Amino acid sequence: MCESYRVAVVGATGAVGNTLLHLLEERAFPIASLKLLASHRSAGEVLSFKDEPIVVEELTHTSFDDVDLVFSSAGASVSREFIPTAVKKGALVIDNTSAFRMDTDTPLVVPEVNMDAARKHKGLIANPNCSTIQMMVALKPIHDAAGIKRIVVSTYQSVSGKSGRAVMELVQQTTEALEGKPITLDRFPHQMAFNVAFDWPFTASGDNEEELKMVNETRKILQDDTIGISATTVRVPVFFAHSESINVETHEKLTPTEARKCLADAPGVQLVDDPDNLKYPLAVDVAGEDDVYVGRIREDVSIENGLNLWVVADNLRKGAALNAIQIAENLLL
Amino acid sequence: MCESYRVAVVGATGAVGNTLLHLLEERAFPIASLKLLASHRSAGEVLSFKDEPIVVEELTHTSFDDVDLVFSSAGASVSREFIPTAVKKGALVIDNTSAFRMDTDTPLVVPEVNMDAARKHKGLIANPNCSTIQMMVALKPIHDAAGIKRIVVSTYQSVSGKSGRAVMELVQQTTEALEGKPITLDRFPHQMAFNVAFDWPFTASGDNEEELKMVNETRKILQDDTIGISATTVRVPVFFAHSESINVETHEKLTPTEARKCLADAPGVQLVDDPDNLKYPLAVDVAGEDDVYVGRIREDVSIENGLNLWVVADNLRKGAALNAIQIAENLLL
Repeated sequence: MCESYRVAVVGATGAVGNTLLHLLEERAFPIASLKLLASHRSAGEVLSFKDEPIVVEELTHTSFDDVDLVFSSAGASVSREFIPTAVKKGALVIDNTSAFRMDTDTPLVVPEVNMDAARKHKGLIANPNCSTIQMMVALKPIHDAAGIKRIVVSTYQSVSGKSGRAVMELVQQTTEALEGKPITLDRFPHQMAFNVAFDWPFTASGDNEEELKMVNETRKILQDDTIGISATTVRVPVFFAHSESINVETHEKLTPTEARKCLADAPGVQLVDDPDNLKYPLAVDVAGEDDVYVGRIREDVSIENGLNLWVVADNLRKGAALNAIQIAENLLL
Repeated sequence: MCESYRVAVVGATGAVGNTLLHLLEERAFPIASLKLLASHRSAGEVLSFKDEPIVVEELTHTSFDDVDLVFSSAGASVSREFIPTAVKKGALVIDNTSAFRMDTDTPLVVPEVNMDAARKHKGLIANPNCSTIQMMVALKPIHDAAGIKRIVVSTYQSVSGKSGRAVMELVQQTTEALEGKPITLDRFPHQMAFNVAFDWPFTASGDNEEELKMVNETRKILQDDTIGISATTVRVPVFFAHSESINVETHEKLTPTEARKCLADAPGVQLVDDPDNLKYPLAVDVAGEDDVYVGRIREDVSIENGLNLWVVADNLRKGAALNAIQIAENLLL
């Protein structure tokens, strides 16, 4: 029915790259050839795809000579260096780093929200930040129904959003804490075991980069610079899935019942909102799932048109690899 | 200099009772006699105070016959049953449960905020909820300076706020999770190891009881029913100290610099706000400390007069036992 693509994965050995390979296989993405690329340090590693071993190659400027589609998630500096070459050579690139997200010419895309922007691409589409993606999937139906005026969001982000090594560091720190040993800090700036902490570089405003991503990317994706957004992003000792406490002020009144109705039918959303029976999205339940889970929808009576929502998604799947693949599926298949 | 008091501790074997005994000793509270009270189940246990063993007695209506000062933290139903007797017999009661907090005749007191209310007591003073106390200590100086219009707060609350057994359950669950074993649920409704969850009974509005406490107690303590408050309370896998992400809208403009100045001189507040050097309050650092730690003070540019704050305090100390003792110290010593 549809053709197959020569695919390259940049950053194949990382946590997102790993999830991407799983998902390409799981979703039977039509692949003619698969090239796994990574830094010199990881080149030579052998990964498995559809039970076949694939040797990881070192990423160079000639890596994209025979490639149709590139998924890139090896960090912003790697993308800045190599992705323009891939685009120039005619590949469609879906870049999961922050390198090009705010460039005017680069669409920033969540398929459920703004596929129209993706269709105007010039060879490069940016995948938004994990914490932004899940918020967008949950808030787009509310924005469409009532117009979002202001968002106040506090996050509870899992350590896998940092890296696969960060996952192992939380395991190590937790063991050390339980045994009363000194806590080893390698990737994390602070103890993460049995703690909540900040884990992103700070900017001049006092916001950290993750917080500014949520602000700027949201406005770009919703194409509305008038939306006020205040974000506080926090790392919690959870392995997989980010949770978000979102307070929304809308222009028009939207009751919790109406909001639930919007969200029940919304693409990519699973509504789990039955607190009387202790049903709401929880990180350990949502880890490994594809959709964005929304619950605890409550009226915020402190303002005229206020709503609270609790939004949870697997940060490696919908927050990264899955969203990137969905963009490609929507454009190509 | 000052007289000594015949003190009774109701709920002496619980997590707050335990901290209370430590603090009474640490602060050299003038005690003429000390009676430790608990349920029939815990009666007979032997606790230590100033290196002396004290046998826990069963709480009955005659327990308060020879007592001047009662600290009560054995749960709301126990307080409802026994505290009126203590008051009737002439003791001053500082009750750490929710039983009487919203009663018109009962002052709800954070010493740094409203000691004037405490002085009007009729034998009974209520200690606010842990999550409210630390928010009040941090926000009172801002309220005085600029008038608080609205608060949006999301919490990151430690398991010790539930009980001492909950602390042990998190240890057990964490060990089980690391070993890949099924997770034991005893006190918690959900897995808490490597998860964030909701852990309080839900009300008809969809808010949980903890969230409504933050709303109602804040208004009572600040004596201002016009303040809009939206709270989302969340349990995180942290042993000690609650963290809070607080977004405040004020009537008058208060810059972060001005807010820092207010808070630097505020009673009971430690300002730790130097993100460039990764200095901000963290639960693992604040556990065991007496003050309320405030940092990450940022302007929220999404509204005209907006501020974000990160507020952390030891929930067993300032959030419970210490606040209760400070009320007594301020009134009696």
